[in-house]
Amino acid sequence: MPSPQDCIFCQIVAGAAPSTIVHEDDRTLAFMNIAPAAPGHLLVIPKAHATDLLDVPSDDLAASARTAQRMARRVVGVLGADGVNLVHATRPVAGQTVFHVHLHVLPRYLDDTIQGMWTPTPGDPNVIRSVGKRLRDAVERAG
Amino acid sequence: MPSPQDCIFCQIVAGAAPSTIVHEDDRTLAFMNIAPAAPGHLLVIPKAHATDLLDVPSDDLAASARTAQRMARRVVGVLGADGVNLVHATRPVAGQTVFHVHLHVLPRYLDDTIQGMWTPTPGDPNVIRSVGKRLRDAVERAG
Repeated sequence: MPSPQDCIFCQIVAGAAPSTIVHEDDRTLAFMNIAPAAPGHLLVIPKAHATDLLDVPSDDLAASARTAQRMARRVVGVLGADGVNLVHATRPVAGQTVFHVHLHVLPRYLDDTIQGMWTPTPGDPNVIRSVGKRLRDAVERAG
Repeated sequence: MPSPQDCIFCQIVAGAAPSTIVHEDDRTLAFMNIAPAAPGHLLVIPKAHATDLLDVPSDDLAASARTAQRMARRVVGVLGADGVNLVHATRPVAGQTVFHVHLHVLPRYLDDTIQGMWTPTPGDPNVIRSVGKRLRDAVERAG
């Protein structure tokens, strides 16, 4: 993974790499994805470098969520999107390819070809309860 | 769409419907998804009813993002997930099926079968710049 100096999103924040910036505030930046899955596909980042959801300061995460909401309202209001997804990936297995934490604001249109990541299927209630209990009881160790 | 009284997530908040709760604080609740795409698949909601990303109060959204981060750290730390996605859907076209705003915390594992929603493909830079300018300049109308 690159150091912040080598990070393309840090370079965008610094104005050292080109981007189409849509919104900027003290903590966050929103700019157009150069590989859009649909018209208006934006990325929202905290300006301060963090790798992913696990290490980003929670205040930067919260600010990024607020900016993503503003952008979601805008793609609906300005572009006429029929809906919106927010998508975030931490680590390569989840699809992360740029290691500066980011949120996708993905406008959805009735005629788009974007697919769901999974098909909802009921799980085994006993397994779900058991896993949930492990997660709940872990608050002191990992919360 | 149901009124808050008919909302299954409001019923979970009220303790009137069963769920496996993992975390609760003043503003948010995290509980196990009964149709998990992977072990540890959680939902995070604001306790106060809101339909989606467009109408949720930004403080509730920010609090939900903070809770999602705590849950992400926990599925990695407790379950050994190899990565995490956050996924949110606003409106049916995006995959929304419960109309109380929620964030999916989706643990990812090297051997899971979850797919990406899209395949990144470079877009037309001129189109991207043009759409980005419309979104940027719309700040006073829709921001």
